[in-house]
Amino acid sequence: MGLVVQKYGGSSVADAEGIKRVAKRVVDAKRDGHQVVVVVSAMGDTTDELIDLAGQVSPIPAGREFDMLLTAGERISMALLAMAIKNLGHEAQSFTGSQAGVITDSVHNKARIIDVTPGRIRTSIDEGNIAIVAGFQGVSQEGKNITTLGRGGSDTTAVALAAALDAEVCEIYTDVDGVFTADPRVVKKAKKIDWISFEDMLELAASGSKVLLHRCVEYARRYNIPIHVRSSFSGLRGTWVSNEPQGDQQVEQAIISGVAHDVSEAKVTVVGVPDKPGEAAAIFRAIADAEINIDMVVQNVSAATTGLTDISFTLPKTEGRKATEALEKARAAVGFESLRYDDQIAKISLVGAGMKTNPGVTATFFEALSDAGVNIELISTSEIRISVVTRADDVTGAVRAVHTAFGLDTDSDEAVVYGGTGR
Amino acid sequence: MGLVVQKYGGSSVADAEGIKRVAKRVVDAKRDGHQVVVVVSAMGDTTDELIDLAGQVSPIPAGREFDMLLTAGERISMALLAMAIKNLGHEAQSFTGSQAGVITDSVHNKARIIDVTPGRIRTSIDEGNIAIVAGFQGVSQEGKNITTLGRGGSDTTAVALAAALDAEVCEIYTDVDGVFTADPRVVKKAKKIDWISFEDMLELAASGSKVLLHRCVEYARRYNIPIHVRSSFSGLRGTWVSNEPQGDQQVEQAIISGVAHDVSEAKVTVVGVPDKPGEAAAIFRAIADAEINIDMVVQNVSAATTGLTDISFTLPKTEGRKATEALEKARAAVGFESLRYDDQIAKISLVGAGMKTNPGVTATFFEALSDAGVNIELISTSEIRISVVTRADDVTGAVRAVHTAFGLDTDSDEAVVYGGTGR
Repeated sequence: MGLVVQKYGGSSVADAEGIKRVAKRVVDAKRDGHQVVVVVSAMGDTTDELIDLAGQVSPIPAGREFDMLLTAGERISMALLAMAIKNLGHEAQSFTGSQAGVITDSVHNKARIIDVTPGRIRTSIDEGNIAIVAGFQGVSQEGKNITTLGRGGSDTTAVALAAALDAEVCEIYTDVDGVFTADPRVVKKAKKIDWISFEDMLELAASGSKVLLHRCVEYARRYNIPIHVRSSFSGLRGTWVSNEPQGDQQVEQAIISGVAHDVSEAKVTVVGVPDKPGEAAAIFRAIADAEINIDMVVQNVSAATTGLTDISFTLPKTEGRKATEALEKARAAVGFESLRYDDQIAKISLVGAGMKTNPGVTATFFEALSDAGVNIELISTSEIRISVVTRADDVTGAVRAVHTAFGLDTDSDEAVVYGGTGR
Repeated sequence: MGLVVQKYGGSSVADAEGIKRVAKRVVDAKRDGHQVVVVVSAMGDTTDELIDLAGQVSPIPAGREFDMLLTAGERISMALLAMAIKNLGHEAQSFTGSQAGVITDSVHNKARIIDVTPGRIRTSIDEGNIAIVAGFQGVSQEGKNITTLGRGGSDTTAVALAAALDAEVCEIYTDVDGVFTADPRVVKKAKKIDWISFEDMLELAASGSKVLLHRCVEYARRYNIPIHVRSSFSGLRGTWVSNEPQGDQQVEQAIISGVAHDVSEAKVTVVGVPDKPGEAAAIFRAIADAEINIDMVVQNVSAATTGLTDISFTLPKTEGRKATEALEKARAAVGFESLRYDDQIAKISLVGAGMKTNPGVTATFFEALSDAGVNIELISTSEIRISVVTRADDVTGAVRAVHTAFGLDTDSDEAVVYGGTGR
């Protein structure tokens, strides 16, 4: 029995009952003979409440002090969890990110982990304790200031600690049973995935699946740490994410891992761009200089008659205003005709390493959308993913149709036959 | 203009409005040309809420994890205060007790400060920042664990930092205007004291005055740090506590500094103790072994006929049960007849260095009580204090009568004449 890192999110420790339930689960793992390190998020709405308080004292509460404030949240949950575990007769010690050796850069509010030196954690578990570590937080290498890791930071803390401690698995406990073939709130017949590769999980995360964040999966892949995503409520086996399936993990020769969707993006179209070298570069330099991350980029062949082309890209809606302002400033230099901005879009993505070797996936995907009356506005593909942009209103129908077309529905035993050649 | 340490209690930073009001006051001190270090307590009821949460997950939430939990409270208030100050256009940085160099022993929940190494605070203020420090907390020299200083710990943090930074004054901001000649809730005519010596303040604190705790005053006396106790609401000048009055601090040749009362104690009487050497020692050894702090101890001459005496002492009501149990166990060895326990008592104390040289203070005190119909049950004195134990029901009348008798009432210009010889 080796070392297990378990991570519990805010919904799992939302109140005293939740903390006691988590404590029992932690103790079970310890009784099974594991060394246990637990990473914990702030209780339920604590972080939102702290953000609200900050807004009441200052309109722009960012940076160092904001991190100092937010890290109080995990401090509360981890101390309470340690107490609850001790109350069950096991020894537990809680550690802040700083005490646990989570070393970050100095970018407050979205710091990146640059090293983990878990000497105190190792000592604590070797002495027989269960170690509880505050997720989401670290200490900057320069300046020794408290930092936070940004959204989903607790998952990253867990994976980084698992890597530094050479854990046999990183268990991510959450309020759903695992990773599903589609969002179960949209597709009632979505199936829980038993095993999924790091690659497919990365594409799902990048395409709108919210169970695991891209950053955490990327870290796990780099250090080859298997992740087990599971529910802290049900105790059921969840979804394993790793390089290769182990033991009885079902793989089912899955061609398609799942269908993801994302309604948080907007589409910007730069209309009438002269079709000559350097134009696209000028556009995306303007966007990059405004520190905006973009997602899909699509350019079609230019109209022969005009020598002009259109370039479209998607980006988070929250960045829409900043992007259009940056482009308007660059209009003279770039020489485009006009800008179009549209935030009533949805992105639907089909992910699966199997599509590399199974011709006809693209055709089936587009036929399913067509049969559901869904118009495709943009298309973008990677080796193991096809994404389309549609109207936001179409998203539910589109996801369901695609999910059914690829035989992913739970009560469907139909095999999917691909007729085309290539995708 | 030198360095000022300001301390704000939980009621001063109870909500966003309070924090913004405190920020303005801090900035005023900075604008006046001072270097400013601010020590802050947890917001309002935060600590009680955290204690309540702890009780929900474990019936005995003490020790290391309890400290980790409670210290979240100051983390929140100090970060918010730093944000509010920055919002007023001044630079501020918050520091945990550990970051501020508050080094303690390893006694969790009531640690004692053993050193203060404020290097980061000094650097921060020398760079022009206002430094905000979490009160009530430190880090243990051995083990580097987070500790808390126990009740009133934030005041002690402030005085200790003031000493380590060689501040010109430690300002303790609270929700009252200063130290009064009696508790203003009991005596409407109580006067705010303009200046009081460390010695008299120590006696008042030991006698039930709650504005400053004994431990904090003791620390300030040892390092000769003047304390200015004042209201964070009114902005009025408060009470100076120091070795000698400075400048225009009014001394008024005060004979009596004030009247304190305390209804938190109980009285234990050990009845029928053989009047021979070693008996009292045996009784108080039993109490000490149970780790109970006692206050007054009174033994009268023994009755000639029986050779037996009674020994009475007072202690916090919360320790009553533990004390009587410890004594019952020791009964055979000590050989006393019976125990009496009484928690319906009040202690009333008259404090003032002037009584050393002014005969008749004791007589005036007892006459005032007698005229008010108050019976005295125990008497105990120090060089600058007289304390009596009365019925709890008599406390209001007793304190008012004594306050008036010594000419402490605000609208009274009467001089007090002492007729007796000696006190």
